[in-house]
Amino acid sequence: MKVIADLCVVPVGVGVSVSEYVVACERVLADAGLSHRLHAYGTNIEGEWDEVFAAIKRCHEVVHAMGAPRISSTLRFGTRTDRDQTMAEKVESVGRRLDG
Amino acid sequence: MKVIADLCVVPVGVGVSVSEYVVACERVLADAGLSHRLHAYGTNIEGEWDEVFAAIKRCHEVVHAMGAPRISSTLRFGTRTDRDQTMAEKVESVGRRLDG
Amino acid sequence: MKVIADLCVVPVGVGVSVSEYVVACERVLADAGLSHRLHAYGTNIEGEWDEVFAAIKRCHEVVHAMGAPRISSTLRFGTRTDRDQTMAEKVESVGRRLDG
Amino acid sequence: MKVIADLCVVPVGVGVSVSEYVVACERVLADAGLSHRLHAYGTNIEGEWDEVFAAIKRCHEVVHAMGAPRISSTLRFGTRTDRDQTMAEKVESVGRRLDG
Repeated sequence: MKVIADLCVVPVGVGVSVSEYVVACERVLADAGLSHRLHAYGTNIEGEWDEVFAAIKRCHEVVHAMGAPRISSTLRFGTRTDRDQTMAEKVESVGRRLDG
Repeated sequence: MKVIADLCVVPVGVGVSVSEYVVACERVLADAGLSHRLHAYGTNIEGEWDEVFAAIKRCHEVVHAMGAPRISSTLRFGTRTDRDQTMAEKVESVGRRLDG
Repeated sequence: MKVIADLCVVPVGVGVSVSEYVVACERVLADAGLSHRLHAYGTNIEGEWDEVFAAIKRCHEVVHAMGAPRISSTLRFGTRTDRDQTMAEKVESVGRRLDG
Repeated sequence: MKVIADLCVVPVGVGVSVSEYVVACERVLADAGLSHRLHAYGTNIEGEWDEVFAAIKRCHEVVHAMGAPRISSTLRFGTRTDRDQTMAEKVESVGRRLDG
């Protein structure tokens, strides 16, 4: 089962600057070989369910290991059985209509 | 690693009434032996990370098997290393202050 | 336009304990006269769109005034034009099917 | 009060293809003059609180007017009082560290 997800990890109890933790999560996703793309309020991730969720777990482990005592994350995640669809296709299908 | 999560599963492409799918997910969580509590816009779940996420995957599998071609879910999930905390304690810590 | 929402306010940069801020938000919702119910990972809120979103804005203002330099919140919010539905009805429609 | 938000609008009860509704929301955001950027699972929006939330309300009104009887949306939204920060700066601060 493929999944397209959107992850936002918020470390709590480490001050207002959280970018170093976001960087660490980006590295986890890259190391996992997952297609992913950062935006201003999260990261799009695409892949097989088990691989995507293993990487998300690893993000929490890494951010705790960096010293964050508490993490509050949010995830959107979509699956479909009618057809395959990539993240790029989702964006393109809107872009075509906007241009049209 | 323990996690407290809040799951909202939205089946897409099956009409406006989604309660039968929510019911199916509640049964998945109960069958998994996970502590969980339904509210008006999702379900609180608490347990070991791997068990919670295995049940969430099972929810998607079951809802697809019921005929939903597409699912768009959202999840909040929190972990902490400073201390254990249950769902009940989170609600009580607010309730005590509200009453106080 | 009525809305049923689910709000989770996460103050960032104020330490790991956030319950005093959650308490303040509960008071904002009560003062606004909105039907609301706390759960372990957020608060269900129901009411007219403008009143609900005015209260959410007030939550951010109050939490900043309490000293939180940064807030990262999440909201689920649903509207429907086919019929009226309350938060209680949403939970009951699932409960009936679970019992049935 | 400035806000950086991330909106995902999910029309329910209109079939599996939702891109025409996403397109309509993009037009609402553009018409409102708000800085915004589509990604694979939502849209980043930045602006003054009242303008951003007025546009989000307009998205729900427009999607209902297009025929969707039910909408279930999710929003992440962040405010900060310690300093101004744009969406571009959030992404850049991570990018610099990843490259470094």
